[in-house]
Amino acid sequence: MSSNTKLSEDTSVSFNGWASTGTPHLSEFAYHPRPIGPKDVEVEISYCGICGSDIHTITEGWGTLKLGPCIPGHEIVGKVVTAGSNALHKVGDLVGVGAMVDSCGNCERCNSGYHQECSKCAFTYNDSFKDGRGGLSYGGYADRVRVNSEFAFKIPSNISPAEAAPLLCAGATTYAPLKRYNAGPGKRVGVIGIGGLGHLGIQWARALNCDEVVAISTSDSKREEATKLGATKFVNSKNPEDMKAAARSMDLILCTSFGENQDWGKLISLVANHGTFILVALPDNPISFRASALTSRCVSVTGSMIAGRETVQEMFAFASEKGVRPWIEKMPMSNANGGVKHMMEGHPRYRIVLETPAAARL
Amino acid sequence: MSSNTKLSEDTSVSFNGWASTGTPHLSEFAYHPRPIGPKDVEVEISYCGICGSDIHTITEGWGTLKLGPCIPGHEIVGKVVTAGSNALHKVGDLVGVGAMVDSCGNCERCNSGYHQECSKCAFTYNDSFKDGRGGLSYGGYADRVRVNSEFAFKIPSNISPAEAAPLLCAGATTYAPLKRYNAGPGKRVGVIGIGGLGHLGIQWARALNCDEVVAISTSDSKREEATKLGATKFVNSKNPEDMKAAARSMDLILCTSFGENQDWGKLISLVANHGTFILVALPDNPISFRASALTSRCVSVTGSMIAGRETVQEMFAFASEKGVRPWIEKMPMSNANGGVKHMMEGHPRYRIVLETPAAARL
Repeated sequence: MSSNTKLSEDTSVSFNGWASTGTPHLSEFAYHPRPIGPKDVEVEISYCGICGSDIHTITEGWGTLKLGPCIPGHEIVGKVVTAGSNALHKVGDLVGVGAMVDSCGNCERCNSGYHQECSKCAFTYNDSFKDGRGGLSYGGYADRVRVNSEFAFKIPSNISPAEAAPLLCAGATTYAPLKRYNAGPGKRVGVIGIGGLGHLGIQWARALNCDEVVAISTSDSKREEATKLGATKFVNSKNPEDMKAAARSMDLILCTSFGENQDWGKLISLVANHGTFILVALPDNPISFRASALTSRCVSVTGSMIAGRETVQEMFAFASEKGVRPWIEKMPMSNANGGVKHMMEGHPRYRIVLETPAAARL
Repeated sequence: MSSNTKLSEDTSVSFNGWASTGTPHLSEFAYHPRPIGPKDVEVEISYCGICGSDIHTITEGWGTLKLGPCIPGHEIVGKVVTAGSNALHKVGDLVGVGAMVDSCGNCERCNSGYHQECSKCAFTYNDSFKDGRGGLSYGGYADRVRVNSEFAFKIPSNISPAEAAPLLCAGATTYAPLKRYNAGPGKRVGVIGIGGLGHLGIQWARALNCDEVVAISTSDSKREEATKLGATKFVNSKNPEDMKAAARSMDLILCTSFGENQDWGKLISLVANHGTFILVALPDNPISFRASALTSRCVSVTGSMIAGRETVQEMFAFASEKGVRPWIEKMPMSNANGGVKHMMEGHPRYRIVLETPAAARL
């Protein structure tokens, strides 16, 4: 495949981005994209969110970068500037691209709506295409990107392009499991971590009319903002009294964050009998807990990763209708390194969106 | 409570059993039971199975024995010899007693059929009663036991008393989660560990008409017996080729056994996308795995512990109808220590049942 990936380059153009070679520092990097295929679109990027996955990937927390320099970024919004003959979008359309850019479209997993589990899925960056045309995937900290148009989504008109960006990963990642596990009336939902993912998780749970929406954070500093986001309760996970009072009280917990040397049993203890603890955060280190945390009360620990096409579309429609929007800080794409630094220091409230000069032309 | 527990003794009688003080060695031990209450029955014990829980408890793998000498045993079968005025059984009835002997009967958990999650649940041994009458619970390696008659179950006539014993814990523990997670047609079910629990898990899965029943063992030595029990496939978990071929192939996995320093990720890798790994085994040490084992494929890890009243009754009816029976080895109660040793050495195929002189009078 590697010879194939080398061959699959459209040498007539270069896309310019910010790439890592295994450190948090990004350098300017140009690449030749794949030739545009019949279903592909080329997107001129206006905005790209900075996701925790970007940081895990470029710092090699999830494994070494085996495919060379990595341009991160999978919360991409921009205008279609070239469209293949069978593309789902036309030149001029405003679209968003999330964490995947291709799948076979025909397998049992794709047909079940879980394209991210397709064996031919290509993630948006640090991955290779598996459709036989070769090529590597590069992300959205860049001026342009070419993707299978099935993974480019129309943005509802009442969501601003910059706000749409974080919905493509953080939004879909938190919306999908809450829906899958029937968050709604009668359910008490906890959200661990009030950050890029968690601040959307709280909003979804509220918009889904859950009986309780519990924001769970390691400090009191976000208590007020959690209420603004829609939380009905607040638990400081470092306060033993808070934790004791909240024990076994939530039917669903969405875990978007974790500490170093996290005591997982402590977090799982918040789940009600027969409830579900959903990991969407992906720690670099293994998670560990006593089996009795599950067996004695029929508690489940599960995980979820991004969302299939239909779920992303459903999420956009729901956000549009219910007014769910990320809270964002814009930074210029030219300062991608500053954005990464800001993210790694845990400052953003709650999502950084990198903006390119193309944003002015939207 | 401790003064109360001391007071709650019927000094007119002594029950005689085999007790541990934190080592695998059992010594003869006599105690005064609680006075018989209106709903209680006194059972003359004929048979008691040896459960893995007995070993974990008496060797203090699950925690130190804080309530003094512990008579283990919670797979009890015998005749009612005394019945309280409101008891559900009458003198002469053949009944079985499993891993719990009391619950409040009125709370949300009891009403949901999960009596084992009632805050006033009393387990059969090494526990205290929480019904206000005080007293400690002692198990079935003994001549007699007094229990709340709601936790004494009629034995179907076509199940022999000795074979009924292991159904009360091993049977209920494996039947309950398979039913809860809809084991049946269309489902591929794996059972890890072909032992006291697993050999029943295989039989249940077969009787429930699962599409596939996969026996998973650390050696080939039980391959033939697994087939006799109803397995349609066999996976040697120490054979990398077997494991590779079986990866992601089972919708449900019932984990009844584990190794020292178990690689949990390896076992979880056998679960199909969106499938469930059910722990019924309860390791002394924490379990640990990479979160990506769950997130990338929506896999769940959950647990289950024994079963509520209605489920035990349902299990007996199903075993009666479908011919599910434990494979047992009988040993005399007087040689309880020999039984424990046999169990700890991993020899039984597949359940040891201790027999008392009262068995001759059934």
